Amino acid sequence: MGHGGGGAMSAELVENLFAPAFGGPVLAGLGDSAVLELGGARLAFSTDSYVVRPLFFPGGCIGDLAVNGTVNDLAMSGARAAYLSCGFILEEGVEMAVVDRVARALGAAARTAGVEIATGDTKVVEAGHGDGIYLNTAGIGLVPAGVDIRPQRARPGDVVIVSGPIGLHGVAIMSVREGLEFGVEVRSDSAALGGLVEAMLAATADLHVLRDPTRGGLAAALNEIAVAAGVGVVLSERAVPVPEPVANACAVLGLDPMYIANEGRLVAFVPRLSADAVLAAMRAHPLGAEAVVIGECVAEHPGMVVARTGFGGTRVVDLPMGEQLPRIC
Amino acid sequence: MGHGGGGAMSAELVENLFAPAFGGPVLAGLGDSAVLELGGARLAFSTDSYVVRPLFFPGGCIGDLAVNGTVNDLAMSGARAAYLSCGFILEEGVEMAVVDRVARALGAAARTAGVEIATGDTKVVEAGHGDGIYLNTAGIGLVPAGVDIRPQRARPGDVVIVSGPIGLHGVAIMSVREGLEFGVEVRSDSAALGGLVEAMLAATADLHVLRDPTRGGLAAALNEIAVAAGVGVVLSERAVPVPEPVANACAVLGLDPMYIANEGRLVAFVPRLSADAVLAAMRAHPLGAEAVVIGECVAEHPGMVVARTGFGGTRVVDLPMGEQLPRIC
Repeated sequence: MGHGGGGAMSAELVENLFAPAFGGPVLAGLGDSAVLELGGARLAFSTDSYVVRPLFFPGGCIGDLAVNGTVNDLAMSGARAAYLSCGFILEEGVEMAVVDRVARALGAAARTAGVEIATGDTKVVEAGHGDGIYLNTAGIGLVPAGVDIRPQRARPGDVVIVSGPIGLHGVAIMSVREGLEFGVEVRSDSAALGGLVEAMLAATADLHVLRDPTRGGLAAALNEIAVAAGVGVVLSERAVPVPEPVANACAVLGLDPMYIANEGRLVAFVPRLSADAVLAAMRAHPLGAEAVVIGECVAEHPGMVVARTGFGGTRVVDLPMGEQLPRIC
Repeated sequence: MGHGGGGAMSAELVENLFAPAFGGPVLAGLGDSAVLELGGARLAFSTDSYVVRPLFFPGGCIGDLAVNGTVNDLAMSGARAAYLSCGFILEEGVEMAVVDRVARALGAAARTAGVEIATGDTKVVEAGHGDGIYLNTAGIGLVPAGVDIRPQRARPGDVVIVSGPIGLHGVAIMSVREGLEFGVEVRSDSAALGGLVEAMLAATADLHVLRDPTRGGLAAALNEIAVAAGVGVVLSERAVPVPEPVANACAVLGLDPMYIANEGRLVAFVPRLSADAVLAAMRAHPLGAEAVVIGECVAEHPGMVVARTGFGGTRVVDLPMGEQLPRIC
């Protein structure tokens, strides 16, 4: 299961097996989405399959997740998603009412995100060879002229900003899956970040890195950036916004919020000179109202993420090995 | 299972459930791929999920099928595929050697088709919730200026051409699945048709319709065109190229070759004046060497496909209802 977890085992699969088999200079970029030229247009292109269990959870379902996840992958290149494809794999026996509810959620999320479902496909597999509904979306969008946002562009001196509280999606999924309660109901943060990124780009075109910390959480996202750019990242652990129910859930389950998946958050690496303007633009947007600076990019310990703890110490925030929470998205 | 069969039940699912939920003018086109404008470029965009069983079969595997199927969907708009996305859903316990073999076949097929794998994703589901490997590909390609190929453009007087013998993919799958033998080994026709379509477009830019008769076979493809354009289609049953092993297999299994899936064939509706030139161009290409005229488009019986039988009679070739061969692609 670890190979799908977004951590070290996933990276190994991509680097050792898929990359050599597929080849190609674009795939080598390893961003959330590929940026490519076609017919004079500069496009971002991305795909994700969604196998989240259960299909419905507080704050969303597989349908909106499949829109938001792919819209966000495109947004992490600075692109506004324009068109999505949508592939359903239905398990024989799944109720049409369930398919209908998911399709409606998908359609509604697409309208909210301002993206059009342009093409689709449906396959059916026998009972016992699926799990109700699996979904794939791929998306294309335009990258604005002059925008070059990718993990490799992180630079020492960059300020690291997170757009809001972390861990809500993962804990929401766990709470329904395990029947656990953590005080108040925790709702997934599932949301489309295209508008927030547009607002940030209006503040400065010189964003260095954007990443949505999905599988593997903030820890995986920051580690990937540190490795890609050959820089170090220093976090202030106290500054990372962890909502109380997420902290409680993690304490009970022995998990670290830094590794929990998010579906409506982004982490940004921004040149120090632009940081105040970007932060102000984020806070003026509903999906960035709780944006905060959580750390900085340094020249020391390249490829490594370090957190300053509340007690004045430091700890290394590793890339997660395998799967903390299988089928979280 | 019928909802995934490419026949009447599939059409019902799209029309009654997905189309209203997703909305949008592009999806309403209902071609194999959507044609859309982005950043001044005219693009074709398409997706398919692949759930073929078994993963390996004579003439191919799920890896090359996932490339060829999506490349062909784009080619049916006249577009040369440029970039593919690729999403794996792995079942826990699938052997890495199997994943590797599929990935290599996928990479090789992409190189043959001249398309680049630009972006990808891997998810893992528990044993008993998948079937080794499911794959999704989405593709984008440029539609050449002046080219407008879609089902709605079929016109009375058009000549109907098929690019080669039919039924090979479906019978190849069946033969390994059921352990049947039909004289000689039947190999899938899985192939990328982008080059063949380019050769046809070099003969005339005025191709009316292209369609690859996959799920539901030639019968489904022709019925969809007849309905979309409000025209009738008259086939000469004797002219339809059915290889002997396919005919034998269908006789044994009580199937009609017209309904069997193909993965490397296309059917073309061509203005009569251009038909000879297009046919010559097809026959000069390895994937069209056995191209033949199988019928014509008429104003009578709009929405209906009729075959003239060898005995001077006629029969209606209906849209297949449900699934003749589940998980054929």
